[in-house]
Amino acid sequence: MNDLGIFTTIVTAFAVLAMGLGVLGPGIGMGMAIAKALEALARQPEAEKSIMRWLLIGLAMIESLAIYVLVVVLIVLFRSPMLDYLLHK
Amino acid sequence: MNDLGIFTTIVTAFAVLAMGLGVLGPGIGMGMAIAKALEALARQPEAEKSIMRWLLIGLAMIESLAIYVLVVVLIVLFRSPMLDYLLHK
Amino acid sequence: MNDLGIFTTIVTAFAVLAMGLGVLGPGIGMGMAIAKALEALARQPEAEKSIMRWLLIGLAMIESLAIYVLVVVLIVLFRSPMLDYLLHK
Amino acid sequence: MNDLGIFTTIVTAFAVLAMGLGVLGPGIGMGMAIAKALEALARQPEAEKSIMRWLLIGLAMIESLAIYVLVVVLIVLFRSPMLDYLLHK
Amino acid sequence: MNDLGIFTTIVTAFAVLAMGLGVLGPGIGMGMAIAKALEALARQPEAEKSIMRWLLIGLAMIESLAIYVLVVVLIVLFRSPMLDYLLHK
Repeated sequence: MNDLGIFTTIVTAFAVLAMGLGVLGPGIGMGMAIAKALEALARQPEAEKSIMRWLLIGLAMIESLAIYVLVVVLIVLFRSPMLDYLLHK
Repeated sequence: MNDLGIFTTIVTAFAVLAMGLGVLGPGIGMGMAIAKALEALARQPEAEKSIMRWLLIGLAMIESLAIYVLVVVLIVLFRSPMLDYLLHK
Repeated sequence: MNDLGIFTTIVTAFAVLAMGLGVLGPGIGMGMAIAKALEALARQPEAEKSIMRWLLIGLAMIESLAIYVLVVVLIVLFRSPMLDYLLHK
Repeated sequence: MNDLGIFTTIVTAFAVLAMGLGVLGPGIGMGMAIAKALEALARQPEAEKSIMRWLLIGLAMIESLAIYVLVVVLIVLFRSPMLDYLLHK
Repeated sequence: MNDLGIFTTIVTAFAVLAMGLGVLGPGIGMGMAIAKALEALARQPEAEKSIMRWLLIGLAMIESLAIYVLVVVLIVLFRSPMLDYLLHK
C-alpha cells in the first residue's frame, strides 16, 4: 500500500471520528442551557423575551465550538494542506 | 489486499462508528432539556405554548449538532473527496 | 512508505482528533455558565444588564480555551514547524 | 524511516493531542466558577464589584493552567530541546 | 533506530501528554473551589476578606499541583537526568 492510500484512509477515518467526538460536549452543554432556560421561563413567564434572547446568544456561542470542529474536519477532508507534500513529491 | 479495499473497509467502519458516537452528547442534552420542559410545564400549565415553542427551538439547535455528524458521515460514505486520489492514480 | 508520508498521515489524523476532543470541556463549561445565568436572570430580572455583561466576559474566557486548540491545530495542519527537518534533510 | 522522522511525527501528534486534552479540565472548571458567580450576583446584586473581582482572579488562575499546557506544546513544537541530540549526533 | 532516538521520541511525547493530562484535575478542582467561595461571598458579604484569603491559599495549593507537573515536564524536556546514561555510554 502506497503513501497516498494510507494517508487518505487514516485521515478520512479520524476526521469523521473527530466530528462524532466533537459534538459530545456541545450537545450536553446546550442541553443544560436549554433545560435551565425552560425552568426559568416557568418561574418568570413575563421575562420570556429577555431569557430567550440570552439563551439564543449562548446557544450560538456553544454552536460555534461545534462549527470549529466542522470547519477543521471539512478542511482536512476536502483540501488537506499536507496532501501537497505527498502529491508533488 | 489493495489500497481501495483497505480504504473502503476502514473508512466505512469509522464512519458508522462516528455516527454512533455522535448522537451520545446530543441524546443526553435533549433528554435534559425535555425533562426540565416537562417539569416546567407541570409547574406552569398555562405557559404551555411558550415553553414548548422554546423547547422545540432548543431541540432543533441540538439536532443540528447531530446533523453535522450525519452530513460528514454521508459525505464520507457516498462521495468521499479523498477517494479520487486513489481512483485516478 | 517514506518519512513524509507517515508524518503527514499521523499528524493530520491527530490534529483533527485533538480539535474534536478540545471542544468537549469548553462545551460543557459554557453550558453550565449559560444555565446558571438564565436561572439568575429569572430570579433577578432587573439585574439583566449586569448578569449578561459578566456572562459574556466568562464565555469569552472559555472560548479562548477552544481558540488555543484551534490555533495549535491550524499551525500544525498548515505550517507544521517540524516539517522543515523532514523537507530540508 | 530514520530517527528524525519518527521523532517529528510522534512528537507533533502528541503535542496537538495534549493541547486538546489540556483544555478539558479548565473548560469545565471555568464553567463551574462562572455559573456560581452569576448565581451569587443574582442573590446579592449590590456585591457585584466584589464578586466579579474575585471571579476574574479565579478565572485568571484557571486560565494559567491552560497557558502552561500551551507553553509546553509550543516549546515542543517550535524548539524541542531534545531535538539537538538527534540533529548534532 | 538507536537508543537515543527512541528515548527522545517517547520521552518528549509522553512529557507533553502528561502536561495536558495534569491540568485536568486542578482545573476542575479550582473551578469547584472558586464556585463555592463566590456562593459563600454572596451569603456573607461582610466576610469577604476572610473567605478570599482562604480561597487564595486554597487556589495556591491546587496551583502547586499543576506546577509540580510543569516542573517535572520541563526537567524531563530540558535536562533529562537519565540521558547521561545514554550519552556517555
